[in-house]
Amino acid sequence: MKVSIFDIASLVSGKITGDGNVKIYNAAKIEEAQKGDLTFLYSPPYEKYFSATKASVILVKNGFEKSRSDIIYIEVEAPERAFTTVLMKYFSPTFSLDGIAASASIHKSAIIGNGTAIGENVVISPNCKIGNNVRIFHNTVILDNVEIGDNTLIFQNVSIRENCKIGKRIIIHANSVVGSDGFGYIKNEGRYVKVPQIGNVVIEDDVEIGSNVSIDRAALGSTLIKRGVKIDNLVQVAHNVEIGEDTAISGQSGISGSTRIGKNCIFGGQVGLADHLEISDNVLLAAQSGVPKSILKPGIYFGSPAKERKTAFMLEAHLRNLGEYVERIKTLEKELIKLKDELARYKS
Amino acid sequence: MKVSIFDIASLVSGKITGDGNVKIYNAAKIEEAQKGDLTFLYSPPYEKYFSATKASVILVKNGFEKSRSDIIYIEVEAPERAFTTVLMKYFSPTFSLDGIAASASIHKSAIIGNGTAIGENVVISPNCKIGNNVRIFHNTVILDNVEIGDNTLIFQNVSIRENCKIGKRIIIHANSVVGSDGFGYIKNEGRYVKVPQIGNVVIEDDVEIGSNVSIDRAALGSTLIKRGVKIDNLVQVAHNVEIGEDTAISGQSGISGSTRIGKNCIFGGQVGLADHLEISDNVLLAAQSGVPKSILKPGIYFGSPAKERKTAFMLEAHLRNLGEYVERIKTLEKELIKLKDELARYKS
Amino acid sequence: MKVSIFDIASLVSGKITGDGNVKIYNAAKIEEAQKGDLTFLYSPPYEKYFSATKASVILVKNGFEKSRSDIIYIEVEAPERAFTTVLMKYFSPTFSLDGIAASASIHKSAIIGNGTAIGENVVISPNCKIGNNVRIFHNTVILDNVEIGDNTLIFQNVSIRENCKIGKRIIIHANSVVGSDGFGYIKNEGRYVKVPQIGNVVIEDDVEIGSNVSIDRAALGSTLIKRGVKIDNLVQVAHNVEIGEDTAISGQSGISGSTRIGKNCIFGGQVGLADHLEISDNVLLAAQSGVPKSILKPGIYFGSPAKERKTAFMLEAHLRNLGEYVERIKTLEKELIKLKDELARYKS
Repeated sequence: MKVSIFDIASLVSGKITGDGNVKIYNAAKIEEAQKGDLTFLYSPPYEKYFSATKASVILVKNGFEKSRSDIIYIEVEAPERAFTTVLMKYFSPTFSLDGIAASASIHKSAIIGNGTAIGENVVISPNCKIGNNVRIFHNTVILDNVEIGDNTLIFQNVSIRENCKIGKRIIIHANSVVGSDGFGYIKNEGRYVKVPQIGNVVIEDDVEIGSNVSIDRAALGSTLIKRGVKIDNLVQVAHNVEIGEDTAISGQSGISGSTRIGKNCIFGGQVGLADHLEISDNVLLAAQSGVPKSILKPGIYFGSPAKERKTAFMLEAHLRNLGEYVERIKTLEKELIKLKDELARYKS
Repeated sequence: MKVSIFDIASLVSGKITGDGNVKIYNAAKIEEAQKGDLTFLYSPPYEKYFSATKASVILVKNGFEKSRSDIIYIEVEAPERAFTTVLMKYFSPTFSLDGIAASASIHKSAIIGNGTAIGENVVISPNCKIGNNVRIFHNTVILDNVEIGDNTLIFQNVSIRENCKIGKRIIIHANSVVGSDGFGYIKNEGRYVKVPQIGNVVIEDDVEIGSNVSIDRAALGSTLIKRGVKIDNLVQVAHNVEIGEDTAISGQSGISGSTRIGKNCIFGGQVGLADHLEISDNVLLAAQSGVPKSILKPGIYFGSPAKERKTAFMLEAHLRNLGEYVERIKTLEKELIKLKDELARYKS
Repeated sequence: MKVSIFDIASLVSGKITGDGNVKIYNAAKIEEAQKGDLTFLYSPPYEKYFSATKASVILVKNGFEKSRSDIIYIEVEAPERAFTTVLMKYFSPTFSLDGIAASASIHKSAIIGNGTAIGENVVISPNCKIGNNVRIFHNTVILDNVEIGDNTLIFQNVSIRENCKIGKRIIIHANSVVGSDGFGYIKNEGRYVKVPQIGNVVIEDDVEIGSNVSIDRAALGSTLIKRGVKIDNLVQVAHNVEIGEDTAISGQSGISGSTRIGKNCIFGGQVGLADHLEISDNVLLAAQSGVPKSILKPGIYFGSPAKERKTAFMLEAHLRNLGEYVERIKTLEKELIKLKDELARYKS
């Protein structure tokens, strides 16, 4: 893959300083880039790498001081975004998947769109409707009556259970499960009786789901992942959960049954939410937070049980000083005894 | 699927108020039900939906005030249990799996029971014994010498390692692993040497295991999951663990090696237990609890490290008030100084 | 499998007391061993089982008091290590995998070494290079241009994405994912735009990876798992992480993007690390620790946020006594009022 600097600058509306005819072969981090590579200068912590980088071309912010003459500059408003645009156009990962593998088992009642590629040993069950330009990698299994929208990408060893609806431009990474049964039982004479989980999972457009994720189907109705949601690896989404638009959930977080999360939330890793909660839009939960109650106000929350940032910081500070407070209590006790003695002596 | 209200009432021994000849087509949550649906009224928080529900038929508790005349009532002792019974009989999820797929690789030494269905690309290794009416979905792999009891249901992309014993009426959800090696090493000259994990996993009857679960085989002997245990998604069960009858473990919890858990325990999500512990029967662990020591007394435990509920609640209350306590210490210090000054002045 | 005690003693350089011609049939834990079994006495907590064990032969530490005459002793320096050596030689788990299955899809451009076994429905994509004596179990999928070194063992339903490099003598357990996309986005007009993840994962020799593990590829460059690292089940390793030699990470731990972990670290279960941290060599993190900042000093750390052991123990002790401290504050307040009153009375 060879691309000229002219082509790159034109793609990202950048201003070249240096020879626009030079061609680049690769894209790399500033600290690892070699001759022939494009890189970018993202933020102040990375400026220390600028003087030594071996990259041939660098994307920098407009007005960046061009102190080296042995490197070609492309000035743009947002270097990281420009770099991402270049990666998407010229360096996207490529993996081969063409046509429909002979070893795939596609039921005759399933409808497969145009330009859709289906890998080896994929199973597509009765009454599925798969859109156009979908890619489904090897050994993925899709049970009955599933719908998948156009341009969706599903990696290998994924399991999608019956009746689920997957939108357009979705990415589901390897070994994830969509539509497993919710964890629902009633007790009868001391033993658990399974509550049939007859709902489904609905995933709206532009969602990305990491690897080894579990999203349970609803007991009744739908577990709902709304447009633009991003879910990291090993996340648990229980039955009847609803996640609002553009919310991002980091690795190993878990959301219990029937909890509804608003839009534009960001959850750190290993966060846990109890069941039947309401979480407002624009809630940021720091990593390892535990949420036992609804959060009705946007803001930043910490800890387990989660508290508003200000409260959590103050608690953390008090905890750090707890030893000192204990010493101060001991001092007070001693002083008080001294004072009592003194008063007693004085009185006598 | 059409069912008459007579049939439903008869199934759950309910008393009809309204026209028993009406037929229902679906089952739904009270807040989402439409004309033609059966629903149920579970508990007080849901009563607010009663006045507006569009359901045609509702399962209610005996003696419920039948204030609407445009809905048909079926009165029963336990509406949720009755609803579950109806779901199991008339609305159980259906997914197609018939006979034994031509693409399945079944070793000639394996024994397959009557009425058992085996999906596409399933691998059944030498000396396996699969019972009657078992369903094994597509792309699941079963290694050597595994036994599976009657009426067990194993979803797709599941991995079962050699020598494991799976009982009757068990459900294993997609992408779970039974019998991976325990995490066992000894150190020799600064490097880890693997301890061969030559035990197995034994799962007794009526167990349900969620999706993306890992249950490790024993180093020696068996990891043991006893009758009626329910395990949610993404749970980790380490080598030589034993889980007692009818214990339920919520999503993303982890149990370290050789820990023995009693009967009828309930663990919330993301709970962690250290290794070699003994957990009594009837222990309830709240979500995100961390258990470093054995728990020999039934009860409710919270926090990390986990404490008895009363202790944990009091600690939580003290922590909430920690800022106030610090202020009270400061006030005490000021008052004490004032008092000392006063005494000194008085003396002089 | 029959082995004479002579052969075992010779393998581990042990001294026999008893009949070396006796043959053993199995290896078992001391509390479960039966006639014909070999067992070992590991550490004091297990000595209570010695008097009652039914094992025929026992590995004990040199100089152990041989108080029973109905059992054969093999004295060695390190009984557990000797037992492991015997297990590896005579009792290693066996599972059948021979040759290359006809149902495997191996691209014609892939290179497969000598003695390598490939299971049913395995997919090996273009330009892969698989070494000698590699075993790849059923239904595992390997995308383009992956390299796998000699004597590596990959279990079933594993997913390895394009361009990853896997070393020699590696074990990857069932259903794990190597090379899924990192969780990287930039925001543009309120929506997430995916940053292409064009790096890879490099796993050096002698690494073991549990089941249901997710290791993300780097955005640029490599996620790096160094020689001898051991990773337990359900662990999350984010993009651009680096893990140093001989570090062991227990189940359900998660490491956020670009964090670098040193050599010889040990992490308990459910540990979480924030992104872009530096963790020194020889850091021990107790289970459920949360690490928001770099740790530059070897040592033992506890809690969330993680603190040095001494600090964490003291904090834990103070927390346990918090109720008592609150009582002491109340007592001080009462005493102070009494003292003030007394002084006032005295003055008047």
